[in-house]
Amino acid sequence: MKIPLENIHKPSLLVDEAICRENIRRMADKARRLGVQLRPHFKTHQSKLIGRWFREEGVSAITVSSVSMASYFIEDGWDDITIAFPVNLRESHEIISLASKTRLNILVTMPETLEAFSGLLNNGNQPIGVFIKIDTGYHRTGLQPSNEEEIEKIIAICNSNPLLKFTGFLTHTGQTYQARGREEIERISREAFMQMLALKASFGTLPIILSVGDTPACSILENFQGMDEIRPGNFVFYDVMQTVIGSCDTGSIAVCLACPVVSKDSSRNEIVVYGGAVHLSKESLMYGEQLIFGLVCRLSGKGWSAPLKNCYVSGLSQEHGIVKVTSEVFSSIRPGDLLGILPVHSCLTAQSLGSYLIDGKLADAHM
Amino acid sequence: MKIPLENIHKPSLLVDEAICRENIRRMADKARRLGVQLRPHFKTHQSKLIGRWFREEGVSAITVSSVSMASYFIEDGWDDITIAFPVNLRESHEIISLASKTRLNILVTMPETLEAFSGLLNNGNQPIGVFIKIDTGYHRTGLQPSNEEEIEKIIAICNSNPLLKFTGFLTHTGQTYQARGREEIERISREAFMQMLALKASFGTLPIILSVGDTPACSILENFQGMDEIRPGNFVFYDVMQTVIGSCDTGSIAVCLACPVVSKDSSRNEIVVYGGAVHLSKESLMYGEQLIFGLVCRLSGKGWSAPLKNCYVSGLSQEHGIVKVTSEVFSSIRPGDLLGILPVHSCLTAQSLGSYLIDGKLADAHM
Repeated sequence: MKIPLENIHKPSLLVDEAICRENIRRMADKARRLGVQLRPHFKTHQSKLIGRWFREEGVSAITVSSVSMASYFIEDGWDDITIAFPVNLRESHEIISLASKTRLNILVTMPETLEAFSGLLNNGNQPIGVFIKIDTGYHRTGLQPSNEEEIEKIIAICNSNPLLKFTGFLTHTGQTYQARGREEIERISREAFMQMLALKASFGTLPIILSVGDTPACSILENFQGMDEIRPGNFVFYDVMQTVIGSCDTGSIAVCLACPVVSKDSSRNEIVVYGGAVHLSKESLMYGEQLIFGLVCRLSGKGWSAPLKNCYVSGLSQEHGIVKVTSEVFSSIRPGDLLGILPVHSCLTAQSLGSYLIDGKLADAHM
Repeated sequence: MKIPLENIHKPSLLVDEAICRENIRRMADKARRLGVQLRPHFKTHQSKLIGRWFREEGVSAITVSSVSMASYFIEDGWDDITIAFPVNLRESHEIISLASKTRLNILVTMPETLEAFSGLLNNGNQPIGVFIKIDTGYHRTGLQPSNEEEIEKIIAICNSNPLLKFTGFLTHTGQTYQARGREEIERISREAFMQMLALKASFGTLPIILSVGDTPACSILENFQGMDEIRPGNFVFYDVMQTVIGSCDTGSIAVCLACPVVSKDSSRNEIVVYGGAVHLSKESLMYGEQLIFGLVCRLSGKGWSAPLKNCYVSGLSQEHGIVKVTSEVFSSIRPGDLLGILPVHSCLTAQSLGSYLIDGKLADAHM
C-alpha cells in the first residue's frame, strides 16, 4: 500500500487493500468450502468501492442495517439485499420503493408490525422476503424459538399476502463479542444452531433459510451444521476487539487511523494526537490490565507497523487522543509526526470518519 | 416548539429553541454580571444558525476545537476565534490562511511546536494570538504552572516574532466532569483559579488574559475570582451527564433524539428503537444504580415530556437502542411510535447526527 504521509493533515482512516481483500477472500473461500451462502454485512465499510472487492470474490447477496444503506448499495448494482434491522414502519414507503428495484428481504420481530406493513403493499411490487428474527441468546431483539404462536402468526400474514414471502429464520449471536477464545465461541454457536435447526424442523414443510453468523463465529468455525447463510460484517476490517475475542490476529486488521501528533508530556510519557471520540468512537475494552481505546503503530509510506509494545490509547475526548507510550517511543516522536491507531471497533470508527484513504486516494462512503 | 411527528422517519435530533436560547441568555447575563468575557465553545453545536442565537445575546468571540470548525464559522462572519486545541503543525498553512481572515488565537503546549510554526509565518499576516495551555489538574494537555522554563521559552518565541502575540494562559478543568455537586466543582475551580492567578503574578509585567471555564464550573460558580474569560460549550444544550454533575436540571436540556420504535419484548419490558451508537455515541454513565446511555421521554407535536421515571436506554449497538421501561409505559408504546431520548453527552450526539430539526426545519451543521 501507499500512504501519502505528507498529505495527511487531519485524522484519516487508512485501508490496507491487500489485507482487506485477503479478509474477504478467506471468508468467501470458507463459505464455498463449507457450503453456505456468504451474505456479508456491509454496515462495517458502507463503501461502494469496497463492496466491489466482494463482488470480485463472487459475492452477490448482501446485508445492510438501514434502509438508506440499502438504497446506497442499490445505486451500485446490488440486487439481493437483506435489511437486517426490524422493519421501521416510518420507513415503509422507502422500503416498498426499494423492493421495486431489488430483491429485498426484511426482518420482522412482531406480527403487529408485519400486519401494518402488509396493508401498505400494492400490486405491482415484487414480493418482499420476510425473515423472522430469532433470539438465540443475545437478548437484543427477536422472538424466542419457543414462541411458536407469534412465529405462526407472522407466517400466516406472509401466506395471506402474495407480496410477502416467508423466507426463513435469522439470528445474531452477538453474545460472541463477550466470548474469549475458540471454545466459547463454538459453544455459543452450537447452541444457537441447535435452536435454529429445531425451529426449522417444527416448520419442516416449508422451504426455510437459516441465516446466522457474526464475525467471531464465522472466523473461527469450520462447520456451520446445517445453516444456509452467514452474515459476518466486521471481518472485512477486523479490529482490536476481534483480536481479543480470538477471531483474528493484529496482522489481519485492515484499517488504521492516521493521527497527527500535537503535543507530548514527558512527565507522563503521554503523546496527544489529533484523533478523538469523534473519530474512534468511545468504544473501549480491557486489554490485559488496561482499559484501552486503541493500539498504536508507526506509519511509513508503505503501511503501518505491528502494534508498539506497551503503547495504547488511554483516553479520548472530543478531538484529543491520549496515547501512553514507553520512554523509548516517547523520545522518538515529535509534534507534527503521524501515529497510527488500530481501532477497538472498526465499524464505529469507519462510521465516524465517513471516508477512507486507500492507496493515497480518498474513497467516500455512505455515512 | 413544533415537532413534525409525521415527517420523522429516522433518528432526528430535535432542538428546543426556547430552552437553548434561555441557556445562552443565562450564561451571557452571568458573564456580564460577573465581569468576564464569554467566549463560548462552539464544538458542541457546530451550527451557524445556533451561533447566530449567541450573537443576538451580544457574544462576539468564540472558541472552536478544530481548524475546519474555525473556517466554518468565519464563513458566517465570526472574526474573533480561539482554536482551543494544541497547534497541529500539519495544518499550519490552513491556520495561517485563517489568520488573514479573522482575529485568531492558537493554543501552544510546547516551545518546539511554536518554534516550528513561527518559522512558517510570512509578513502580511496579521499577528496571531498565542495562549499557553496550562494543566491545572485535568492532566490531559498543557504545561504545569510550575514549568516556568518552558513557559518563558514560549513567550520568548512570541517576542521574537512580530506575527505572534503572547495573549495569556488557558486551562480546561475537565476534571469537573467527574465531580458530583456544587462543592466539589467549586473546590476544583478555586484550586485552578489560584494556580492561574499565581502564574499571572509571576509574569506580572505583561498584559495577560486568563481563560478558564468548563460547563459545570460556569453553570455553578458565582465568582470567577480574577479570571478574564470563560469558554463553556456544552451548556448550550446540556445533557444527562450535566444533570448528574449538578450543572443543570433536565428541564434545561435543549436537545432530544427522536427515535422510531421498531420492536418490543414483553418478557423483558424492553423497547427497541432505531437510534444506536452511531447516533448517541457510546457515551454512558452511572445513573443511580444503572449504567445508562440516555433517558426516555414522550414526544408530542409541541415538545418532549420530562424523562419517564424508571425508563432508560440500557444498551446500544450500531443502529439499535434498547430501552428499558416500566410495564405501564411498555403497554402504551407501539411499533411505529416515536420515543425521545435525552443524550448522555450532547456534544457527541450532535456530532454523530450532523444536523438538527429546529421547529420542523432541518438545520445543517459543520460535522
